[in-house]
Amino acid sequence: MTQTGIRDTTEAELDRVLESAAQAAESFGALPPSRRAAMLRAVGDAVDAAAAELVPVAQRESRLPEARLKGELARTTFQLRLFADVLEDGGYLEATIDHPDPDWPVGPRPDLRRILEPLGPVVVFGASNFPFAFSVIGGDSASALAGGNPVVVKAHPGHPELSVRTGEIVAAALRQAGAPEGVFAVVLGQETGRRAVLHPLTRAVGFTGSIPGGRALHDLAAGRPDPIPFYGELGSLNPVFVTREAAGARRDEILGGYVDSFTLGTGQFCTKPGVLLLPEDTAIDSLVEAVRGRAGAPMLNERIESGFADGYRALADHDAVEVLVEGGPQEADGRTVWTPSLVRTTAKRFLEHSAELLEERFGPVSLVVSYSDPDEALNVADVLPGQLTATVHGEEADEQAGPLLDRLRRRAGRVLWNGWPTGVSVTHAMHHGGPYPATTSVLHTSVGSTAIRRFLRPVCYQQVPQHHLPEALRDGNPLGIPRRVDGELRLP
Amino acid sequence: MTQTGIRDTTEAELDRVLESAAQAAESFGALPPSRRAAMLRAVGDAVDAAAAELVPVAQRESRLPEARLKGELARTTFQLRLFADVLEDGGYLEATIDHPDPDWPVGPRPDLRRILEPLGPVVVFGASNFPFAFSVIGGDSASALAGGNPVVVKAHPGHPELSVRTGEIVAAALRQAGAPEGVFAVVLGQETGRRAVLHPLTRAVGFTGSIPGGRALHDLAAGRPDPIPFYGELGSLNPVFVTREAAGARRDEILGGYVDSFTLGTGQFCTKPGVLLLPEDTAIDSLVEAVRGRAGAPMLNERIESGFADGYRALADHDAVEVLVEGGPQEADGRTVWTPSLVRTTAKRFLEHSAELLEERFGPVSLVVSYSDPDEALNVADVLPGQLTATVHGEEADEQAGPLLDRLRRRAGRVLWNGWPTGVSVTHAMHHGGPYPATTSVLHTSVGSTAIRRFLRPVCYQQVPQHHLPEALRDGNPLGIPRRVDGELRLP
Repeated sequence: MTQTGIRDTTEAELDRVLESAAQAAESFGALPPSRRAAMLRAVGDAVDAAAAELVPVAQRESRLPEARLKGELARTTFQLRLFADVLEDGGYLEATIDHPDPDWPVGPRPDLRRILEPLGPVVVFGASNFPFAFSVIGGDSASALAGGNPVVVKAHPGHPELSVRTGEIVAAALRQAGAPEGVFAVVLGQETGRRAVLHPLTRAVGFTGSIPGGRALHDLAAGRPDPIPFYGELGSLNPVFVTREAAGARRDEILGGYVDSFTLGTGQFCTKPGVLLLPEDTAIDSLVEAVRGRAGAPMLNERIESGFADGYRALADHDAVEVLVEGGPQEADGRTVWTPSLVRTTAKRFLEHSAELLEERFGPVSLVVSYSDPDEALNVADVLPGQLTATVHGEEADEQAGPLLDRLRRRAGRVLWNGWPTGVSVTHAMHHGGPYPATTSVLHTSVGSTAIRRFLRPVCYQQVPQHHLPEALRDGNPLGIPRRVDGELRLP
Repeated sequence: MTQTGIRDTTEAELDRVLESAAQAAESFGALPPSRRAAMLRAVGDAVDAAAAELVPVAQRESRLPEARLKGELARTTFQLRLFADVLEDGGYLEATIDHPDPDWPVGPRPDLRRILEPLGPVVVFGASNFPFAFSVIGGDSASALAGGNPVVVKAHPGHPELSVRTGEIVAAALRQAGAPEGVFAVVLGQETGRRAVLHPLTRAVGFTGSIPGGRALHDLAAGRPDPIPFYGELGSLNPVFVTREAAGARRDEILGGYVDSFTLGTGQFCTKPGVLLLPEDTAIDSLVEAVRGRAGAPMLNERIESGFADGYRALADHDAVEVLVEGGPQEADGRTVWTPSLVRTTAKRFLEHSAELLEERFGPVSLVVSYSDPDEALNVADVLPGQLTATVHGEEADEQAGPLLDRLRRRAGRVLWNGWPTGVSVTHAMHHGGPYPATTSVLHTSVGSTAIRRFLRPVCYQQVPQHHLPEALRDGNPLGIPRRVDGELRLP
């Protein structure tokens, strides 16, 4: 497969892809969870086995370094295996049984049994900055497949060849593992993406990308004759607040961590700390030096480069903003690398110009905001829109910390203490989400095992005979899963 | 409080109400679940104690009979107590703890702890047909309050006096139980409702009502600068399929149950069976007789009367439809009562004219659809849009039943066997929802204990010290709740 063979999917092709997906939905969704677990593991093994082929393609298309991509591929296949574990545990089904009760206070209670079932075909939009982990077989696809939903991936134009080849490997692995034909496909083209969101057979959409792009697709999904769930993970500033006590006790350690975090991946992470709140009397010479000393690295593609250049310019030229380090593009070894920039303002000015200064700049820049007293820092916290993360650096008995944490937990999906938001672990307790514009769906996560919940809907069976019930709901608990029975949670 | 004292809430008043709600959100949301449980029980007791005052107001405003309203009030206060039980169980928090793990496959895992937290002020639209159970302190309000969210109810214009008085009783009970000021309020007016959906401080909306009304509000919520969750429970046909074997074995029993169900509450339930699929050779003389013999009853209000009159006319006059019983309005004891109507078509015609025949007619009419063979019945199942319920009447070893159930579970939130969809029990396993247009949010329910999930968002705490964590996530499990620890679900 060469890049010249890659072209946009036609409307007729998209129809066929979604029709196949819809046909596969019934048998795929009806498989026992353990069967789908085996399929996810087979996909993980196939992708791992293809690493030597896929990583060089990803390097060429995304400009990301080999070590990072190898790590990302391992993360991707780990996610598939984690969802296999989730399927085998079975708690995700939320199986609930209420036996008949003639004395139930609202009238005789019939036999009622509730379980979560798949939605049907899910359209997933790959992201530019994670060609594996948030792309063809990334977290959205893994969680949708785990839930029993066929997946149609709209490839990101930043890595079309990788997307098509990954899609072939995934589809072949699923086929070999016994999944029905049509359960997985990759499509290409911006108009194809719009059509897929609007397609009558699409039942939900997962998206990772920019606020304008995500918002436009959200509006399409919400405006359909039958609105469908749209899970968009969009933009975040990921503010980090350093208390006076922390700045006094650990200034250099904190400033060093900050530079590492905001320049990681050339600043191209949705969890990049875009704002650092520092007490105004904190010396930042070491910070400026550290930023100046950072080597540059390529950005993902020209579109992101030019978007960042514009965004950086608007920020650096803003009257309220002072440029501490002016980085930018440089030629090195025949390619363009970007060195990081650092800008500064005061909390007072930040509050006066929050509309412009709260905008995400996707790339290697961050804004230091100096605050004069703890209340001013709280005022900044109060104007923050929804965030994926918010961080406090504080000390053990730190009077500033409590009120800050109380505000930030109401605005962010993940609250960190003495850490850095980049490096999102994949676990059961992880939540990668938050109020708009962090996401379009404040109840859900795109990372971690509970991401599966996005692609499942409850169904209640009333007085349905045993042989017509899903196995998970039958007497005797044949799947051996946790169930809530007559109000009481029971382990297998 | 008399009806003359009731007027639309002004824009300035609504602002104040939502500002108070937003101010109450922090302290109310931070209460231990057991404290909120006590508050819900106090509200339930207060509403029960006011039954003698409230039921006559409800009778006058809704035209519903006393016994029904007494039962509905008991259902309402039971719901409050059920959510108190949910809070004390604590499983609803989905508390999840992943301890640090240096060998975690995607890199060293920090301490991660996830819990569900309240969203903030929730706007609830009361429904006309349940002046207690889906109104001021119905299921939406109870589940939102249980989750720790302040509630602003937009009263239904069909029962303003009842709404205002119930609101006073609820607010007083909450105040006496120690809830913060502003945690509960009732507002009035159609424009007030629109404003409340668009208000920047509103974090989610619960709605029960018509498809056009709910869709308009859904579109407002989705079109906000910051879209918020909108949980609309809209319309449903609630099809009932009778297999050949069931019709042969239990015809009269089934037809009798059908009449009881579709005429219950003068057909003004969202779970009314609007369509009955019958084998074409089934004699229905007894059905026609039974419908003719039914006494009439008042409808809720003039708006619903005229909407039903128009909808019935469109159905009865449709070329594909034959009128079996022409009911309608009659004067009796100085009031207007409506006797039920029954209409019929064939599956073939139904499929030809499904767009018109699939429309919900809210009131005392139902459509019998005769099918010639099992495949035709399946074809009807295939054209159904999202439903709150779908029912099969079948026999023990009935070849028609399996394929029907397989189709209906993909279209309906609740699947019944040999029962009737009216009479929605309030339990842990209940699901009252479904794909659009049954609801605007296919993942959620408006009845049963999992309704609380609509008004909660996950927050993950990374490396946060014990004393800054919510109690539910602290070491030693101080709340004594189920938690998932390092991937394993553990009971207290």
